[in-house]
Amino acid sequence: MSNEGATLYLSAFVDELVRSGLKHIVISPGSRSTPIAVLAAEHAELKVWLHIDERSAAFFALGLAKRSGQPVALLCTSGTAAANYYPAIAEANLSRVPLVVLTADRPHELRDVGAPQTIDQLGMYGSHVKWFVEMPLPEANVSMIRHARMVAARAVMTAGAAPTGVVHLNFPLREPLLPELGHPQLFSAERRADNVAYTADIHAPVGIAKDQLLDLSTELLQAGRGLIVVGPCDDKDLANRIAALAELLNYPILADPLSQLRSGVHPKAHIIDSYDSFLRIEGIVKELQPKLFLRFGAMPVSKPLLLYMNKYIEAKHIVVDEGGWRDPTLLMATRITANAAVLSQQLVEVLREQEARKLISNLDQAEAAHSEQRAWLSRWQQIQHTSAGVLEEVAAHHHDGELFEGTVVKHLQQLMDNGSALFIGNSMPIRDVDSFWRNDEKEIALLANRGANGIDGLVSTAMGVSALQRGTVLLLGDLSFYHDLNGLLAAKLHGLDITIVVVNNDGGGIFSFLPQSTLPNHFEALFGTPIGLDYEHAAHLYGGQFQRISSWEQFQEAFRQAQASGGLNIIEIPTKRELNVTLHRSIWPKLTKALVSQ
Amino acid sequence: MSNEGATLYLSAFVDELVRSGLKHIVISPGSRSTPIAVLAAEHAELKVWLHIDERSAAFFALGLAKRSGQPVALLCTSGTAAANYYPAIAEANLSRVPLVVLTADRPHELRDVGAPQTIDQLGMYGSHVKWFVEMPLPEANVSMIRHARMVAARAVMTAGAAPTGVVHLNFPLREPLLPELGHPQLFSAERRADNVAYTADIHAPVGIAKDQLLDLSTELLQAGRGLIVVGPCDDKDLANRIAALAELLNYPILADPLSQLRSGVHPKAHIIDSYDSFLRIEGIVKELQPKLFLRFGAMPVSKPLLLYMNKYIEAKHIVVDEGGWRDPTLLMATRITANAAVLSQQLVEVLREQEARKLISNLDQAEAAHSEQRAWLSRWQQIQHTSAGVLEEVAAHHHDGELFEGTVVKHLQQLMDNGSALFIGNSMPIRDVDSFWRNDEKEIALLANRGANGIDGLVSTAMGVSALQRGTVLLLGDLSFYHDLNGLLAAKLHGLDITIVVVNNDGGGIFSFLPQSTLPNHFEALFGTPIGLDYEHAAHLYGGQFQRISSWEQFQEAFRQAQASGGLNIIEIPTKRELNVTLHRSIWPKLTKALVSQ
Repeated sequence: MSNEGATLYLSAFVDELVRSGLKHIVISPGSRSTPIAVLAAEHAELKVWLHIDERSAAFFALGLAKRSGQPVALLCTSGTAAANYYPAIAEANLSRVPLVVLTADRPHELRDVGAPQTIDQLGMYGSHVKWFVEMPLPEANVSMIRHARMVAARAVMTAGAAPTGVVHLNFPLREPLLPELGHPQLFSAERRADNVAYTADIHAPVGIAKDQLLDLSTELLQAGRGLIVVGPCDDKDLANRIAALAELLNYPILADPLSQLRSGVHPKAHIIDSYDSFLRIEGIVKELQPKLFLRFGAMPVSKPLLLYMNKYIEAKHIVVDEGGWRDPTLLMATRITANAAVLSQQLVEVLREQEARKLISNLDQAEAAHSEQRAWLSRWQQIQHTSAGVLEEVAAHHHDGELFEGTVVKHLQQLMDNGSALFIGNSMPIRDVDSFWRNDEKEIALLANRGANGIDGLVSTAMGVSALQRGTVLLLGDLSFYHDLNGLLAAKLHGLDITIVVVNNDGGGIFSFLPQSTLPNHFEALFGTPIGLDYEHAAHLYGGQFQRISSWEQFQEAFRQAQASGGLNIIEIPTKRELNVTLHRSIWPKLTKALVSQ
Repeated sequence: MSNEGATLYLSAFVDELVRSGLKHIVISPGSRSTPIAVLAAEHAELKVWLHIDERSAAFFALGLAKRSGQPVALLCTSGTAAANYYPAIAEANLSRVPLVVLTADRPHELRDVGAPQTIDQLGMYGSHVKWFVEMPLPEANVSMIRHARMVAARAVMTAGAAPTGVVHLNFPLREPLLPELGHPQLFSAERRADNVAYTADIHAPVGIAKDQLLDLSTELLQAGRGLIVVGPCDDKDLANRIAALAELLNYPILADPLSQLRSGVHPKAHIIDSYDSFLRIEGIVKELQPKLFLRFGAMPVSKPLLLYMNKYIEAKHIVVDEGGWRDPTLLMATRITANAAVLSQQLVEVLREQEARKLISNLDQAEAAHSEQRAWLSRWQQIQHTSAGVLEEVAAHHHDGELFEGTVVKHLQQLMDNGSALFIGNSMPIRDVDSFWRNDEKEIALLANRGANGIDGLVSTAMGVSALQRGTVLLLGDLSFYHDLNGLLAAKLHGLDITIVVVNNDGGGIFSFLPQSTLPNHFEALFGTPIGLDYEHAAHLYGGQFQRISSWEQFQEAFRQAQASGGLNIIEIPTKRELNVTLHRSIWPKLTKALVSQ
């Protein structure tokens, strides 16, 4: 039977994905998806990544898209395969990672009639995608092939438009499923011309108007006790601009570990990176009464910072965001819909102009605010300096052969290469990085899944990152590691280089910090949940190297070895949950003492 | 801070789940779900099963519910945890397994504002659940506690009502999250009385009216060439009734491997179990022209049977089902909305009455139909006899040390104990069981996930079955095994006894039967997908025994050892994909020769 309809329609679709800038597709094997899979593999400019487990496949795609900043496609067959994408889609939607999800489906006559491998796939990801399209049955006529190209172009564009996110296209497909790879119009039907996309995407990231900018800059200059807060954000252009802005405003910058502001060569005199520790101290929170927050990116990881922001309703919260509504404080007073890098650059320019022309009308008032702001900045810098010292000391301390979970962060920061990337697990690791990762010249991208903060899919996301990024290191806990052990297969199938550092406290370490830790009967069974796995076997299963270390000297040696040898390397750091709580809690009295004595 | 509201509301809810008949809850650790988890663990009559990976947890619950026939609860925290339930929910919905899914959520003020671990959970499973309820914030007043009991009772009732399926309740919860376990009204607030459910569920499975029954029985008697088809169905009451019905009607019974009709002590003279093989032969399909199908249960696994049913539009298709619309033939002419066991019993009774009273009006016509039907039955029985012999021969044949995948089915049928259960993987294993599992006196439950036929979650579903069923064996392929390796943790955490037989042809064996097997460039990369894992490491990771066999003698020995030792046992059967195709395809000429020579 001829299969010209599917061949021309679907090859035009695949071709247009590529012409719209899409470079990677992650495919899981299946029968119904055969034509799209074969055409993707046949297209010279599309890189196919195979992954058997669709849950891991979707997180792998998330990692590729997160690192590249470009939409990545996913393809699976009909049925529960598509349901396995859900966790990564929910994460991508919230962390604004562009994905184009392609699901093969049975045609209409086989739906909802008990046909095999058929579930209701229409809108199956609900509000977690930006755009859903039920595709037509493939047809070879001109209008339909143009439709295929238009939807492909629009899908890539929509996923990549701010705020970036997920698009889902569902393809009903009939047998025969094999495309005609020898067809003379394969990939070329209804192309406008070579090297021309069907629909070119011209758009610029938005800033705000000049008069709005003048008002804003005046407000920022006159605040007196203003703060810049930068949450998770993958935009590399931001660091220099925010640094320049902070300098012009004399604002401290509270820089989340995922802000990309703690690492790199941009000026860092205003960076405050130990606030998660010192904002736990009541006296400090009381002393540091803010008047204005200018916030960029997602909400920072730190809970003490959230509580600090929540405390002062009279402080003005200004949030810069390209869309959505990311403000769990519920105190946002002004929302600026703009791109963070563009707006900060606009502000820098207008402030420099104003400085040059001395345009500020009320000079006395400006001078008063200015000097208050300087004093405010220097107090933050002083606290930062002291706190960093205390944290350094805690991380460096030896505890009779026991390994403190915070210390690994210091070692990673020292050991990792310039230009590498650290992918950070949720639960304890991201909090430890927040506490112990100091700002530094070395350019290390700090990445995590902070849309929904799941412990699922971390191995696969880091694998996706490692596919496009040399020197990728994953730091995560033992339960997260277990949750996505399947993700290790990608390293084996695709020869990836990655070093995985597993902090193994045999269970859910974070729960020891919560009130349930006092429950005598149920704590270990429901929250501690030790699972007692020896991950050396997991390393062997997937052809990786494994080392369990018992000292930091061993860790350094193991890490250097791993970096040198390449491939899949797993380094396990055995720790104790109780000791970890004790050591974390020992920070606050030390810090209080150091800060009060100032 | 007092937490009386959550304590009374949620403990009444948990108590009422139990009073409504729910016995098992599968919990994954998390913070937001703390109050429900702690109360479930505290309730004396609820069995808590912990599982870290929510995807595996949900399939484990599916297995518990499938084996017990009773609703089972699931509990997870907010965020992507809940998204991991999706594959099992889609499967449970289609295979009609009752689940009560409880998801903890952030309260309204923390939704859609970028708060951590917060995704849109309202209706997040779309059309894949029967009932969704957004619960209120817990409150301790009388109306609200009654509401908690009512929803719990209604959830269990709704999940368990035919057609059984999935209910989703979403709980917004505020801190503090710890319930007051010492509260005097813990679990007892607004109970009607001890041992009394809040809302008792009285209902009977439905049959049809007497006059409808008389018409139907007449039609069945006069059909001449009628067939009973029984698809997947877990109802143990069905076998004897269908056997009696077939005897009264002189109908052959085409019994799916999952119909529970192939194994057990019910009469089996009318059972045809080799149709998947002989309905591939054109001459036989042509000869066996049917006039009426009376179909029970889901659509059978066999594709040749589907094609056979599709071929004859003039044959009358009667489908007995309690709801839904399970007819991929699109040829259903009469739909009887009734319970299969009730209806077959009604038919047996009315036919016996009719026989006793000789009520059929037109005796000549009846006699003609009767004798046509007898000849028809005996021809099916003859073909069945011959085909079973050929299949027996193929399975018994030795192939120079190579192991044929079909042969394992014969060995399992011989080796497994009376009263045990075989959980069968999708893709090739279910097809091999269809071909090679002959009807037999031994009572062995044959189970599978045939709602959406996924290769995901099979290990966990079988683990759930094994928790309630002695002698559980899982037969599956290597890709399915990899997909749910995480499911093995349940055996370790809960000390389960299970024997897992992995047919390892290093890849997707079923694709070798499809047209893409001829694609020179893409077949192995996209469909064959060898992943080369040595599963011995997986066994060690989860504390199981592992044996890789290289002869059927070794298999028998390994199987007996596994059954004797208990715990987690993995037996790997290495096979070759190409040889497997060749051997499967060798059946049809042999069968054709044997049947044509008759």
